[in-house]
Amino acid sequence: MAQSLFPDERRLGLLTDLYELTMAVGYFAHGLAGQRATFELWMRRVPTCRNYLIAAGLEQAIHYLQRLNFADDQIAYLRGLPAFAHAPPEWFERLRTLRFDGDVWALPEGTVFFAGEPVLRVTAPLMTAQIVETYLIATMTVQTLVASKAARVVTAAQGRPVVDFGSRRAHGPQAGLLAARAACLAGCVGTSNAEAARLLGVAAVGTQAHAWIMAFDDETEAFRRFAQVFPNATLLVDTYDTLHGVRKALACGAPFAGIRLDSGDLLELSRGARAILDQAGRRDVQIVASGDLNEYKIADLLAAGAPIDSFGVGTELVTSRDEPTLSTVYKLVEQETPAGVAGRLKLAAEKKTYPFAKQVFRQTGPDGRFTGDVIGRVTESLPGEPLLVPVMKHGELVRPLDSLEACRERVKQQWQRLPPGLLGLDQVSPYPVAISPLLEEEARRLGKS
Amino acid sequence: MAQSLFPDERRLGLLTDLYELTMAVGYFAHGLAGQRATFELWMRRVPTCRNYLIAAGLEQAIHYLQRLNFADDQIAYLRGLPAFAHAPPEWFERLRTLRFDGDVWALPEGTVFFAGEPVLRVTAPLMTAQIVETYLIATMTVQTLVASKAARVVTAAQGRPVVDFGSRRAHGPQAGLLAARAACLAGCVGTSNAEAARLLGVAAVGTQAHAWIMAFDDETEAFRRFAQVFPNATLLVDTYDTLHGVRKALACGAPFAGIRLDSGDLLELSRGARAILDQAGRRDVQIVASGDLNEYKIADLLAAGAPIDSFGVGTELVTSRDEPTLSTVYKLVEQETPAGVAGRLKLAAEKKTYPFAKQVFRQTGPDGRFTGDVIGRVTESLPGEPLLVPVMKHGELVRPLDSLEACRERVKQQWQRLPPGLLGLDQVSPYPVAISPLLEEEARRLGKS
Repeated sequence: MAQSLFPDERRLGLLTDLYELTMAVGYFAHGLAGQRATFELWMRRVPTCRNYLIAAGLEQAIHYLQRLNFADDQIAYLRGLPAFAHAPPEWFERLRTLRFDGDVWALPEGTVFFAGEPVLRVTAPLMTAQIVETYLIATMTVQTLVASKAARVVTAAQGRPVVDFGSRRAHGPQAGLLAARAACLAGCVGTSNAEAARLLGVAAVGTQAHAWIMAFDDETEAFRRFAQVFPNATLLVDTYDTLHGVRKALACGAPFAGIRLDSGDLLELSRGARAILDQAGRRDVQIVASGDLNEYKIADLLAAGAPIDSFGVGTELVTSRDEPTLSTVYKLVEQETPAGVAGRLKLAAEKKTYPFAKQVFRQTGPDGRFTGDVIGRVTESLPGEPLLVPVMKHGELVRPLDSLEACRERVKQQWQRLPPGLLGLDQVSPYPVAISPLLEEEARRLGKS
Repeated sequence: MAQSLFPDERRLGLLTDLYELTMAVGYFAHGLAGQRATFELWMRRVPTCRNYLIAAGLEQAIHYLQRLNFADDQIAYLRGLPAFAHAPPEWFERLRTLRFDGDVWALPEGTVFFAGEPVLRVTAPLMTAQIVETYLIATMTVQTLVASKAARVVTAAQGRPVVDFGSRRAHGPQAGLLAARAACLAGCVGTSNAEAARLLGVAAVGTQAHAWIMAFDDETEAFRRFAQVFPNATLLVDTYDTLHGVRKALACGAPFAGIRLDSGDLLELSRGARAILDQAGRRDVQIVASGDLNEYKIADLLAAGAPIDSFGVGTELVTSRDEPTLSTVYKLVEQETPAGVAGRLKLAAEKKTYPFAKQVFRQTGPDGRFTGDVIGRVTESLPGEPLLVPVMKHGELVRPLDSLEACRERVKQQWQRLPPGLLGLDQVSPYPVAISPLLEEEARRLGKS
C-alpha cells in the first residue's frame, strides 16, 4: 500500500525529533517533567537578501498545540525502541494523556520583526514545552520564510497584483498550501492552488497551460474553444511564438480578458504584445507575466516601463529560492526551580542566547514611523509598544485568532510605518534592535557562573 | 478554529492549480475529455551544483493517483466560482465520479537520471491526465530534490553514517516526512524525525538538545542524569565550551557512547575532543558532528583528517539549500485523435519539447559502467536497458511498489556503475544523453507544421 506521508491530526505527537522524546524521558525520570519552563522561538539572523521578516504560521502552530497527542501505536513504537529500554514504564502511560496545557505569547501574524526578537514564547511543563520544539520551529519557519519573500515581491510590483503560482514547486502538497497562505498574508491577491483558495477564502486564479494549446492542431482554434467556455479567460500566447500568439488570440473570434506571457524577453514581448493589442483596439486586454519571476526581475521590468498588468510568481516565491530557510531556534530561557526562577542561556560559539522571558518594545517617531526596538525582560516596563501578545492560557485560546484578512491588513500598515529603505530590494543598514541593559547584565551574570 | 492546512486524502482532487480545472471544463465542453493522451514528467536541467539526479517520490505519486477524488464541498466550491459560470452542469456531475484510471510508467525510485529524461509517463483520458499535473510535479520534485542532495552528502561522508536531522527546517511538517524518506532512500542511515522513522521503518536517531544541558545548573550533572536513563547516549558537549564539555562528560560517572559537536571549528574541536577521549582510555566513544553541515564541509573535514565518526545533516539537506527546486515539467507529448496518434510539442523560447511517448535506453560498457543514455520513442527498439517500467494499468498497480530498502539498494548499485567523475562534488562534463534520430526527425517535422 502506498503511503501518503501526510501528517495526521489524530497523532501529532510523534512528529518531533527523537531527542525531544529522550529528553522528555530524562526530565520525567528525574522529576523535572512538570517544572514550569519558558522557551522562546526566534530567528538568529535576517538573511542578507532580506531587510526584515514577517511573522507567519501562528495559526498552524496553534492548531498543533490544540491537538497534540500520542496515539497508541506511536507509544507502542517508542516502547519497542532499544534506546527507550531504560525509560520508566510510567512515562509511556504519561504520554497517553499528554496534552498541551501551557501559555503562549506571540507576535501577531503579519508583524514585521528582526533577528533575535521572540516570535513565539511558550511557558509550560518542561517536558511538554520540550516535545513541541521541532514542530513549532518547522511550521513557523516555512510561513515566515515565504511571507518575508512574498513581501518583497509584492512591494516590487508597486501595486500591480501578484498571484502565487507556486504549488507545483513547493516542497510537497502541504508546503503548497502553507506557502499560499503565507503569500496571501503578505499581500498576494490570490493563489493558483484551488484547495488553498477554498480553505483560505482567497481568490483562485488561473489562466491556461501549454497543454491546452498543444491539444489542438491550430492555436487560433485552441484560443477560440477556450474563450467560448471562459469568456473572461487569460490566453497563454507563448506556446509557439509569442507575438504570433497574440495575433491569433485577437483572431480567435471569441471574447477574452487577458493574455499571459510565460517565456522569452518579457520586456520586449510585453511591449510588442501591448502594441498589437492596442492597434487592434483592445486596450482593455490585460497582460499577465510569469516564468521564473522574482522581486528583482519584476523591479527591472517595471523600471524599464514594461506594460505588464499583473504577475504570477511561483518557484522563487514558494521556495524562497535565494534563501530557502531561516535560522530559527527554540531555546530554554527561564525555568521555575525549587530555588526560584532561574534564567537559562547558551554560550556556544556564535550561538549565544539571552536568559529570561522577554518582550519586544517597538518605538515610534513623531511621524508614526518605527524607529527601533528594544528586547527586554517581560518584567521590565520599557518605552514603546509591546509586540508579543497573549494567545493561549492553560492550553486554551485567550482570544479568537486573527483572520487572514486582518493579518494582511497588518502587513500593509506596517509597511507604511517602516523606515523606507527597508522596503527596497537592496540590503540597507539593519533596523536598530537593542538588548535592554537589564538583560545584558543578567546574561553577563549568568555567563560567569 | 485553527486550520491545519494538512492535505486530506478523502479530498485530493482540488489540490491542483485552478487552470487544470478550467482546462478540464474546456476539454469536457468540446468532447475531448475522454480522448487518450500521454503526458511526461521530466526535469529540464540538472542544477549546476549536481552531476546527476535520483528519482524519488513515486510511491507518494501513486498514493495520490489511487485516491484521486473530489468531495462534495469541493465541487460546490467550484460551482460557485464566477470563472465557472459557463461550465456545463454535467461537468460538475462528472467530477463526482472522477477516478484515475490511466496507465503509468516510471523510473524505479532510486534510479539515477538526467535532464530531459522522463521520470514518469501518464497515459489517461485527457481531462484526468491534465488535472493531476500540479500534484504530480510537486510530489516528484521535492523527493527527487532531496534525494539528489542527500546522495552527494552521503558519498562525501565516504562510508561514515549520515543521519537526517532536518525536520525542523523542512518546509512544514509533511515536507519533513518527505525529506526523511528521500534522504534515507539516497543512503542516510536514519532520521531524527520519530514519526518518519516509524512510518518508514528506518532508524530513529537522536542525541541531546541544548535545552537539556541548560535545564541543570551544572553541565556534569546534566550529562550524568541523562546517561543514567540512556546508557548509550550521545552527549551534546558544546553548550558552554566544547572541550570543557568533553571533560565534563568523562567526569559524569555514567556510561555514554558518543559525544556531539554542534558549533565552532569542527576540525579543531574534533581533534581536541578525540585526544581528550583517547587519553582517558575512551577510544570507543564516537564523535558525531552537526551544525549547518553540507557535502562540501564534510568533504573538507574528512580531507583534513577530522576524527569524526558520523554526521547529522539538517537544513542544507532537507531544503537542498544551494538549489531548493528542480525545473520539473509535465507536458502533453502524444494524443489519440480521430485522425490517429498525434505527437505534441512546444516550441517556446528555451522550453522546446520533443513529441511522442518516450523510453530511455541506458548503455553499458564492458566494465559494467553506464556509458550514455538515448531517449527514443517507445515504439523504437534501441540498444541498452529500457529504464521506464510499467507501474499502473487502468488505474491499478501492475506490481507491488518497491520497498524503501530496495530503492536504497538500487542507489548503491547505480553509484558503482556511474562514470566516477559524476560522484565527485565538482561539476564535470555532463553524462551523455542523446535524442534518437527518429525523435529529432519527428520534432523537426511537427515543428514546421
